[in-house]
Amino acid sequence: MISLAELNASTPDEFVAAIGDVFENAPWIAARVAPHRPFETVAAMHDAMMRVIAGATLAESLSFLRGHPELAGKVARAGAMTDHSVAEQGSLGLDRLSDDAFSRFESLNTAYRARFGFPFIICVRRHTRDSILARFAERLRNDMESEQEAAIGEIGFISRLRLTAKVTGPGMPITTGRLSTHVLDTTRGRPAPGVKLSLHEIGADGSAEIVSTCTNQDGRTKEPLIADQPLRIGTYELRFHVGAYFAAMANGASEPPFLDMVPIRFSIAEPEAHYHVPLLVSPGSYTTYRGS
Amino acid sequence: MISLAELNASTPDEFVAAIGDVFENAPWIAARVAPHRPFETVAAMHDAMMRVIAGATLAESLSFLRGHPELAGKVARAGAMTDHSVAEQGSLGLDRLSDDAFSRFESLNTAYRARFGFPFIICVRRHTRDSILARFAERLRNDMESEQEAAIGEIGFISRLRLTAKVTGPGMPITTGRLSTHVLDTTRGRPAPGVKLSLHEIGADGSAEIVSTCTNQDGRTKEPLIADQPLRIGTYELRFHVGAYFAAMANGASEPPFLDMVPIRFSIAEPEAHYHVPLLVSPGSYTTYRGS
Amino acid sequence: MISLAELNASTPDEFVAAIGDVFENAPWIAARVAPHRPFETVAAMHDAMMRVIAGATLAESLSFLRGHPELAGKVARAGAMTDHSVAEQGSLGLDRLSDDAFSRFESLNTAYRARFGFPFIICVRRHTRDSILARFAERLRNDMESEQEAAIGEIGFISRLRLTAKVTGPGMPITTGRLSTHVLDTTRGRPAPGVKLSLHEIGADGSAEIVSTCTNQDGRTKEPLIADQPLRIGTYELRFHVGAYFAAMANGASEPPFLDMVPIRFSIAEPEAHYHVPLLVSPGSYTTYRGS
Amino acid sequence: MISLAELNASTPDEFVAAIGDVFENAPWIAARVAPHRPFETVAAMHDAMMRVIAGATLAESLSFLRGHPELAGKVARAGAMTDHSVAEQGSLGLDRLSDDAFSRFESLNTAYRARFGFPFIICVRRHTRDSILARFAERLRNDMESEQEAAIGEIGFISRLRLTAKVTGPGMPITTGRLSTHVLDTTRGRPAPGVKLSLHEIGADGSAEIVSTCTNQDGRTKEPLIADQPLRIGTYELRFHVGAYFAAMANGASEPPFLDMVPIRFSIAEPEAHYHVPLLVSPGSYTTYRGS
Repeated sequence: MISLAELNASTPDEFVAAIGDVFENAPWIAARVAPHRPFETVAAMHDAMMRVIAGATLAESLSFLRGHPELAGKVARAGAMTDHSVAEQGSLGLDRLSDDAFSRFESLNTAYRARFGFPFIICVRRHTRDSILARFAERLRNDMESEQEAAIGEIGFISRLRLTAKVTGPGMPITTGRLSTHVLDTTRGRPAPGVKLSLHEIGADGSAEIVSTCTNQDGRTKEPLIADQPLRIGTYELRFHVGAYFAAMANGASEPPFLDMVPIRFSIAEPEAHYHVPLLVSPGSYTTYRGS
Repeated sequence: MISLAELNASTPDEFVAAIGDVFENAPWIAARVAPHRPFETVAAMHDAMMRVIAGATLAESLSFLRGHPELAGKVARAGAMTDHSVAEQGSLGLDRLSDDAFSRFESLNTAYRARFGFPFIICVRRHTRDSILARFAERLRNDMESEQEAAIGEIGFISRLRLTAKVTGPGMPITTGRLSTHVLDTTRGRPAPGVKLSLHEIGADGSAEIVSTCTNQDGRTKEPLIADQPLRIGTYELRFHVGAYFAAMANGASEPPFLDMVPIRFSIAEPEAHYHVPLLVSPGSYTTYRGS
Repeated sequence: MISLAELNASTPDEFVAAIGDVFENAPWIAARVAPHRPFETVAAMHDAMMRVIAGATLAESLSFLRGHPELAGKVARAGAMTDHSVAEQGSLGLDRLSDDAFSRFESLNTAYRARFGFPFIICVRRHTRDSILARFAERLRNDMESEQEAAIGEIGFISRLRLTAKVTGPGMPITTGRLSTHVLDTTRGRPAPGVKLSLHEIGADGSAEIVSTCTNQDGRTKEPLIADQPLRIGTYELRFHVGAYFAAMANGASEPPFLDMVPIRFSIAEPEAHYHVPLLVSPGSYTTYRGS
Repeated sequence: MISLAELNASTPDEFVAAIGDVFENAPWIAARVAPHRPFETVAAMHDAMMRVIAGATLAESLSFLRGHPELAGKVARAGAMTDHSVAEQGSLGLDRLSDDAFSRFESLNTAYRARFGFPFIICVRRHTRDSILARFAERLRNDMESEQEAAIGEIGFISRLRLTAKVTGPGMPITTGRLSTHVLDTTRGRPAPGVKLSLHEIGADGSAEIVSTCTNQDGRTKEPLIADQPLRIGTYELRFHVGAYFAAMANGASEPPFLDMVPIRFSIAEPEAHYHVPLLVSPGSYTTYRGS
């Protein structure tokens, strides 16, 4: 990690060496903002970089876009991506797809490159695999101008996250998401402690557990379910094991209890938002809502 | 009560004698539909009567409107209204207003008559006193044509209710409203029996109890709170005494309990609709909704 | 079908021929109640038959229990059960189990017969396969007296259902269960029409769709989800496709919507009860409860 | 305000001068704990003082209790109470009661003094007038020992609050209550901004507005409704003006809207607890609960 103060005080070469890789194969972007230092916040520095991209010539712009690796592409399989891209694509397993999935991405990549002349760019860390495939298909229908805008918008998300992981200073992290929950026992009008719960991503091809935890004395989890990172756009299920909770409270008369595992399925569309998805529950009823 | 079959079989004079008074001081309306008998339903007979009004000359129409009594007016105080109007206006106490309220109606009546040349007509049984005053002020802003239409629309409601009270036959009552409730104990996932509750009209000048009752073994009231009549447009409050219920169930730990009397305040805008306003309640939470 | 009146009027032999098979291989039970005719209701006749069993000698009783087929046993595979048993065991697929499942039942059957000397008897139509296996394991821990009582209790359920399918008359069906739902759109305070929904049984080995339907103008389904039969003890999931509903209403701003498919998972413990499991839903919240 | 560090460092005389009046007319309690300084927290100092009371002789104890003023008594009217008592009793208007209310307290005071020989002591700041009258009547039925304990318990609450208002230091305030709310618009799954709301105390003789405010962009109020002080035991009503909110959002189709002012009535039984009483609301439904 490097502080904003250090970046502000470094030579132009040191500056480019430190954060030039925030934009894929394009250290010239950092070079062009170096003379505009000092920056008051990391967000201001990032904004200046995005203005450099907006002010680039068409040739520079296309060359810049072409410098990105394909998503889940041969370059990934061949192990020739930048470290940043390896980490990002790897977080979704895009570098080790099954042959079927690889073929699906390949045909999308081929169609996309034929239409636009540069690879499909998306901020992987804001997405599940399902939402990437959905956006891919949608964006293939864009005209050239809208698609260049869309690609640069994604580069904004990607570089912002890369800066967040590198630089400390006022106003950091620039942006983030959060998913939290709590469980209220409406029978008592009290938080429900000791309720086991888990969060699952629901994908087209199956579901995967993200985290499994338990409520504390405040009916909340010790940590938010997801924090300090974008929430991946996608569909999730929270599973609350309230049957065991009420059985321990001797509230559950019948066997099996009317409610045992309560699944709450919801989708996330805003990766930088705060989603609070609580459960108000008694043995015979429950309510959930998107809170804040 | 007379049956539709008898009305269909009677002479024209008998027919007019039986139901001519359904329209205020206008037996000619019944006379004009007599040749169109037999009617299959009371609703069809009423529709035919409304078509007679729609097809009347302007002079007939204005004369018909002028034949109605003023609302809460001097005629009412003087005891010179038709029996129907006496019963209807009396149901809201419009024939025995305080001097203040009487003055308020008088000044609205005067302004209305000056503007339109006939008295303000409204189906009193679909309204509370507050909603009558609100409509009165609104309709004073109408142009002549819209207001004649509004007045005849109200006459449609009035005459339909008068027919409903007089004639039996297929498809009767033509239309009606209903207000019901039930109480669920979500702690048990069971209907809550023995919960005392009352329904109150909430007026600008205070509130008045309409009915007080208790839930049965099904968590419902023996009869709907209001049935077989239009619901008066206005604001209401249901008051559920759940504190005593949960105390009897030994669920209420703290003293006083978090919830004791639960007030649910709502407005009715559609007199002929079915409003179902239930309470889902546990000692620490409740939910209500407009059901069906 | 035969009416109670006909049964009351028939000769003893006709009577036994008509309903003697209601008890497995034990027409003597019908024979002993024949002299007590006429019965006022089918329930009264059934009660009389159960009293015959309660008053039988120990030898009769054990012989009667031993006359029942094993559950999912070799007799079933070999096709040698009574027609009634074939239909009942077949409703859960117990006559065509996988080899694994067959082995599991076989070892339970062997242990049970070794302990009690008669086959395990349970009213299959009140159970899912999971709840049968759970009861089987539980009842293996009973002492002889409790277990005889349990077996005869189940015979009561079985014979009551067999009578219900055979005899018409006052007070029929003797008993039944019902599962229903409705969907309220709390955004509008109106029933939600056109919401696709399905009911699934959730078993230890997977889930199976029971029915798929759609809400009507009243937010209800045309028929109850299950009616006129016992509800099988077990775990279920209702899946409401509210995302498409709100999208059609242009209420869903974000893509994907926060709520799309809402799963409500619950268990049924009382096969003859009425379970009403509604959904009160808006794009950002929902509530469910066990209603009545 | 004085810091705990200063109190720990002061002479015994300075110490007694600074906080001796925390117990009514009993500086000897402070004097006896002075030698036990330094205290690590204010709570530890308060505990030490309460142990002095517990260890006092019966004569000291009774004399101490007798040194308290009557509640709403002649001393209050005559203006001869300590400053602390004036401020506390004045917060409920107990020093300026109507003649009727004064008589009611007088007769309770007389009966109490006749029974126990010392005045009725209660921590006024934890109560509404209604809950004081309820406790007064209850405690009159105590035996002498239980009542001395009850009185000393109340003195614990009173002196803790007096210390809280005087002394700063680690772990301060020792204890406090909080009442908060928020409003969720479940139609949007978003906090509802700009909703007018007010909090009212519901007394036997009428209701009084405590605070009137408006939700902010987070659907919360800028400050908690009550904070940094005990919540008075009693009954309250939150009134949320959601009709205007939904009308502004163009969600309210019918006129009048089904929901306009939503009253949530609840009681507080634990003055030092945190009560969070939110409203989840759409035009056709709402839910409230005791949250945390």
